[in-house]
Amino acid sequence: MADEVTQRKIEHVNIALANDVSAPQRANWNDIQFVHQALPEVDPGNIDLSTSFLGQALRYPIFMSSLTGGHPAVTMINKNLARAAEHYGLALGVGSQRAAILDPRLAASYSITREQAPHAFLIANIGAPQLITQDKHAPFTLEQVQRAIHMIEANALAVHMNSLQEAAQPEGDRNAYGEVAALRLLTQQIGLPVIAKETGAGVSREQALLLRSCGISAIDVGGAGGSSMSALEAARSQTRGDERTMNIGLLYKDWGIATPIAIVEARTARLPLISTGGIRSGLDAARALALGATMVGIGFPFLQAASESYEKVCEVVESIIAQLKVAMQLSGATTLAQLRETDIVVTGASHEWLALRGFEDELKLMAQRHW
Amino acid sequence: MADEVTQRKIEHVNIALANDVSAPQRANWNDIQFVHQALPEVDPGNIDLSTSFLGQALRYPIFMSSLTGGHPAVTMINKNLARAAEHYGLALGVGSQRAAILDPRLAASYSITREQAPHAFLIANIGAPQLITQDKHAPFTLEQVQRAIHMIEANALAVHMNSLQEAAQPEGDRNAYGEVAALRLLTQQIGLPVIAKETGAGVSREQALLLRSCGISAIDVGGAGGSSMSALEAARSQTRGDERTMNIGLLYKDWGIATPIAIVEARTARLPLISTGGIRSGLDAARALALGATMVGIGFPFLQAASESYEKVCEVVESIIAQLKVAMQLSGATTLAQLRETDIVVTGASHEWLALRGFEDELKLMAQRHW
Amino acid sequence: MADEVTQRKIEHVNIALANDVSAPQRANWNDIQFVHQALPEVDPGNIDLSTSFLGQALRYPIFMSSLTGGHPAVTMINKNLARAAEHYGLALGVGSQRAAILDPRLAASYSITREQAPHAFLIANIGAPQLITQDKHAPFTLEQVQRAIHMIEANALAVHMNSLQEAAQPEGDRNAYGEVAALRLLTQQIGLPVIAKETGAGVSREQALLLRSCGISAIDVGGAGGSSMSALEAARSQTRGDERTMNIGLLYKDWGIATPIAIVEARTARLPLISTGGIRSGLDAARALALGATMVGIGFPFLQAASESYEKVCEVVESIIAQLKVAMQLSGATTLAQLRETDIVVTGASHEWLALRGFEDELKLMAQRHW
Amino acid sequence: MADEVTQRKIEHVNIALANDVSAPQRANWNDIQFVHQALPEVDPGNIDLSTSFLGQALRYPIFMSSLTGGHPAVTMINKNLARAAEHYGLALGVGSQRAAILDPRLAASYSITREQAPHAFLIANIGAPQLITQDKHAPFTLEQVQRAIHMIEANALAVHMNSLQEAAQPEGDRNAYGEVAALRLLTQQIGLPVIAKETGAGVSREQALLLRSCGISAIDVGGAGGSSMSALEAARSQTRGDERTMNIGLLYKDWGIATPIAIVEARTARLPLISTGGIRSGLDAARALALGATMVGIGFPFLQAASESYEKVCEVVESIIAQLKVAMQLSGATTLAQLRETDIVVTGASHEWLALRGFEDELKLMAQRHW
Ligand SMILES: Cc1cc2nc3c(=O)[nH]c(=O)nc-3n(C[C@H](O)[C@H](O)[C@H](O)COP(=O)(O)O)c2cc1C
Ligand SMILES: Cc1cc2nc3c(=O)[nH]c(=O)nc-3n(C[C@H](O)[C@H](O)[C@H](O)COP(=O)(O)O)c2cc1C
Ligand SMILES: Cc1cc2nc3c(=O)[nH]c(=O)nc-3n(C[C@H](O)[C@H](O)[C@H](O)COP(=O)(O)O)c2cc1C
Ligand SMILES: Cc1cc2nc3c(=O)[nH]c(=O)nc-3n(C[C@H](O)[C@H](O)[C@H](O)COP(=O)(O)O)c2cc1C
Repeated sequence: MADEVTQRKIEHVNIALANDVSAPQRANWNDIQFVHQALPEVDPGNIDLSTSFLGQALRYPIFMSSLTGGHPAVTMINKNLARAAEHYGLALGVGSQRAAILDPRLAASYSITREQAPHAFLIANIGAPQLITQDKHAPFTLEQVQRAIHMIEANALAVHMNSLQEAAQPEGDRNAYGEVAALRLLTQQIGLPVIAKETGAGVSREQALLLRSCGISAIDVGGAGGSSMSALEAARSQTRGDERTMNIGLLYKDWGIATPIAIVEARTARLPLISTGGIRSGLDAARALALGATMVGIGFPFLQAASESYEKVCEVVESIIAQLKVAMQLSGATTLAQLRETDIVVTGASHEWLALRGFEDELKLMAQRHW
Repeated sequence: MADEVTQRKIEHVNIALANDVSAPQRANWNDIQFVHQALPEVDPGNIDLSTSFLGQALRYPIFMSSLTGGHPAVTMINKNLARAAEHYGLALGVGSQRAAILDPRLAASYSITREQAPHAFLIANIGAPQLITQDKHAPFTLEQVQRAIHMIEANALAVHMNSLQEAAQPEGDRNAYGEVAALRLLTQQIGLPVIAKETGAGVSREQALLLRSCGISAIDVGGAGGSSMSALEAARSQTRGDERTMNIGLLYKDWGIATPIAIVEARTARLPLISTGGIRSGLDAARALALGATMVGIGFPFLQAASESYEKVCEVVESIIAQLKVAMQLSGATTLAQLRETDIVVTGASHEWLALRGFEDELKLMAQRHW
Repeated sequence: MADEVTQRKIEHVNIALANDVSAPQRANWNDIQFVHQALPEVDPGNIDLSTSFLGQALRYPIFMSSLTGGHPAVTMINKNLARAAEHYGLALGVGSQRAAILDPRLAASYSITREQAPHAFLIANIGAPQLITQDKHAPFTLEQVQRAIHMIEANALAVHMNSLQEAAQPEGDRNAYGEVAALRLLTQQIGLPVIAKETGAGVSREQALLLRSCGISAIDVGGAGGSSMSALEAARSQTRGDERTMNIGLLYKDWGIATPIAIVEARTARLPLISTGGIRSGLDAARALALGATMVGIGFPFLQAASESYEKVCEVVESIIAQLKVAMQLSGATTLAQLRETDIVVTGASHEWLALRGFEDELKLMAQRHW
Repeated sequence: MADEVTQRKIEHVNIALANDVSAPQRANWNDIQFVHQALPEVDPGNIDLSTSFLGQALRYPIFMSSLTGGHPAVTMINKNLARAAEHYGLALGVGSQRAAILDPRLAASYSITREQAPHAFLIANIGAPQLITQDKHAPFTLEQVQRAIHMIEANALAVHMNSLQEAAQPEGDRNAYGEVAALRLLTQQIGLPVIAKETGAGVSREQALLLRSCGISAIDVGGAGGSSMSALEAARSQTRGDERTMNIGLLYKDWGIATPIAIVEARTARLPLISTGGIRSGLDAARALALGATMVGIGFPFLQAASESYEKVCEVVESIIAQLKVAMQLSGATTLAQLRETDIVVTGASHEWLALRGFEDELKLMAQRHW
């Protein structure tokens, strides 16, 4: 099975790089508008992007999202990401470590990150479906999870929640019953902060509250609008001729809660939030932070850059930072705390959803913070 | 006249198969959004799709909608449908039985369904306009209606309401005055549950209440957005060179209450509801069920498949079930009862209509069922 | 000047026939939706379309809108219209009679209508700008106005309000100051019901109240969305090389209150209303009547048909009546009075305008008349 | 550095003339609708467009927006503009005078305006970023600012606020910290009315109140939807191969508060308002004035015309005036004061923004001023 997993890992990366599996219009970032400050009273030279996440100081509120590992061919990708994480002081995630848990020879493709980034905030990664009994395999033991953590001397553990992906995956681990109990146990036993991480379908208000009750330390809302695991699996199903599963992938490509909506929903739980899914510029990042995210997660743009070179990764980081600073200056924010206090006007489809879900008054307050 | 009717039956099927007479954008199914559950706590292997309809247990909440019969050429279609109904435990309807009531030699094209599906829930079919006096013919007698029922040993009788179709039909039975009284009498005398079935223009709140007062046992809301009988008749009028009637067909192609709206309106009557009209995937089915339908009716996709083979029909059934289970899992429902308790966000044009019609509070409650 | 006027008349007709000067999307008729009645309880054979307008019974609520006259070449058009008006019992208007008031030799192109339609409700036509002093001419005397009335033995006098057209007309009568006083005097002196008739920019709530206070007997709301006098004049300006005036015509092509909105606004005055502007089918007619119009006015479709033949005019009338009856049946109305009591859901841009203008509660009531 | 500045000035003009750097759809002027008056009771011959701005009478509420100067090649442009300003009695601005403050030999390209327009209301122009310390230069002294004023014997001084442009400018003066204090000092010392002028990103309610507290005499809301300084700088960055800055320009092309929204927001401060940004016709001008602007500013159309000839400039002025008068007549306004009392229906995206920002009641009042 480790073979199947490692094979899947390389397929994911190749398909993602070859196809466009993003659904950026689904995120509706343009629904989120700042109120321009004609006299912003900000010197961009003084803008402070530092933040603190799970007790550790980060120089930038940027998380290079959990992407890959588990195949020798992707080691270079993780190396390029890790060098940049170290250089800029970013948080970095690795892809699901299942492959290396099952086959220790694959660990190098993950552990390269800690080698290259001795000081970075590294986030280990396992899947919630692997915490419970599936048709084809037993749940991970606590020891196996710890192996993943030690593999990269992780600062935190992300448990990705990807039922949609499993449903659209030919060989998916479809069962999701028991994840809550398993998560609750894990957070009690693991002795490291656990981040519950959606991978493209978002986290609702109620689910955020549920996650908090499980002892989760932070939530990555992983909303709809970015790389679609569903579209990715549809592409894989197609190459395998599995039409029924492919159709599920296509049908559910747009399923889920869009990233900006998910931030507003999930912040009800008052946990640190990572906003991942469709962040494609520093302006999107600013929107996510102003809506209440602690940090933004970016996947595909980093994957693409890292598959080319370290320098490309740096260029992506620099661009996003430069763009983010412009949004901060123009909305009058010198710090991230101030950014979170700026006026934000949430319109369009995002507005309609949130109003129906009971957030209308909150949106009005957000649009009139300075009245 | 039986000749005219049998001829029309084959024309309907041929035109439907050759042209696209659906208006799927009219249904606005995308207005109906689920709230994704990141931790759904559902094992798809345990999902139970069984439902009970008019006292009979069904394995799946799927009704193969009343489509055809009345011409030897369509017997194979009904056979393929019936085999699948028997195999999967679905409800199955036959097309209007008028042809065979008038000419018993045509009965075989209907009775094949009961032969092939001895245990299925079969639904006989007559038209409301045939219950009253029309320019060209007298109303059916009770005995004639019973003939239709016995022809397929039906479990229920559907009376289709299709004034729009009649209006767009060159030789249409245009009168609709007296249907209420006729229906009321029929439900008292027939001794079998009667389903009032719209065929593409939907059932409003007030009409649902009226139908209940007529002693109807269930409503098929048959909303706008699926196969358009109006477009179908326009195509027929065109081949006959009847331009004025053709224009009526085209003009009224989009008339009516869209299916998801009709569910919300009609459930006011608290009767079992079938949701037919534009259901094209298991996701649409999930939306209809979550809005309050007891069962979904699917017409054109089954007609198309059955005109090819039994296997194609099975493939449609399997796909829809698989897709429906994904929606249920991701919204956290293991049973249909739970699906009906999930949060549903109704946006866009559907929202606007329902708000104006007095359902705004209901929509808010539906979007916040778990608060 | 009569030469200039008669020349303009023929230009108007020719340009209208050659170009598309309608802006149908501006009317937003699709915003106006009926609530389908699955059991309509209507026999179309019994539908009664008769109405009463200014004390006279009409067989159909259709007004062949004031279109032309004043040039021998258009006599045939008026003849064809008049024959149909007589045959079907419709109201008929003639175009502005200024040309014939100034030059009696042109009267025949108008008086043909009464010759052909001895029993029809004929509506004389003069312009409000001609009731007051303009740069280039004195106001009409009472005697001159009476000449117009006698020319066709009119049943009523329409005073068209067309400031937008005059503004976009190279040689336009631009002054509009004094029209209110002139109208008030006219209604007192003329001894015939006066209809205030907009020609494409609509009548608001306040203006309808003002018109009532002037002693007006009925209002033709002449809203935006049909033939655009502004676009018509732009085309004329173009042929004359008058670019500045042409640009005004183009810029103001979409100016004004859309017809369905204008009905809702103007009915505040509780006067008989004619709904003209963009009525292109019997379904549009039904919408206008359900919103509160007493009668619909149709211009361009009749102009086009009448420029071909009497038979074409009849075909237009028959089509509209047939289509109107379908809408009535499907919304459960056997009479126009019942049509005005059906549920009407006003959505989209029409909804937004009317809500802002203070009609939100009224729209809700209109959508829930049967609750 | 004066060289750099003078070079930039000519680049701006050339790029603006060669490219389309407007984003007119962003202004959403079509959201702003008048309520047509069928009987407007206005003689266009009597329409009075005179207004008073900062104590001086103007014949038209038109401001030829601050555009250029600082390079001999643009002297002709300023000459053509000034001749028209004198002829029509308009207000006229010059472009940023930094170049000539630093290099007096460039003054002629500015002072031509006063030579050609001895009686016009001339507005001097400096940038807010030049009032404070920047990386590369010291703030202007009071004496330097006065030099700008005397250069054209200005009636008022515009301080442009253009942080967005500086951010998107390769060599931009990025600091904006201290502008409030500098402005406050300037208004106290300069002895001439100061106009705070945005250049394409708009002024919010809060910023308008802040500006008033700085002693500003009038605000030019300079909203999004017209010439985009951001797109202009992106084009410049491109020619320099500075990709990162170019991307910022493109990313922020649509940033900011649309002009009509900015008027409603900024009028909270009850200062005279200039509405600049995307005014492309007399109808747009009418909308801005009806929303509460004292005067409209027009940039690009005048730049384009003036780069051709004086006659072209006159044609633009005449067209706008003629078009503006049509809007006034049709909405029943003979004076600008009356125009500001007409009913205005604000719909679409503008409506949504303003409602969320707390202006819903105000919009309702604006739509029902005559009830
Ligand atoms: C090729 C690929 C592989 C991924 N693998 C993982 C994974 O193993 N674990 C995980 O938590 N997320 C995984 N993700 C999801 C990303 O972490 C991220 O949530 C997603 O790409 C959305 O962000 P984006 O729109 O910026 O790409 C993967 C994404 C991609 C594109
Ligand atoms: C060719 C054809 C024939 C039909 N005949 C009947 C009929 O005889 N009786 C009836 O109640 N409905 C009839 N229907 C309507 C269907 O039962 C169903 O309501 C309609 O097709 C909408 O569902 P769909 O969008 O899934 O096709 C017919 C539909 C089609 C396409
Ligand atoms: C060529 C032409 C000439 C017209 N002349 C007159 C006229 O003289 N007097 C008048 O009141 N309306 C006149 N109208 C306006 C029509 O009566 C009617 O209001 C307008 O055409 C809108 O209706 P429609 O959209 O159905 O065409 C004219 C319209 C057209 C197209
Ligand atoms: C080429 C060009 C140069 C400009 N230079 C200045 C300037 O120096 N100072 C200033 O306040 N505004 C300047 N502006 C902004 C204009 O004054 C005006 O605010 C802007 O063009 C928006 O108006 P519009 O959409 O009508 O063009 C400039 C605009 C353009 C197109």
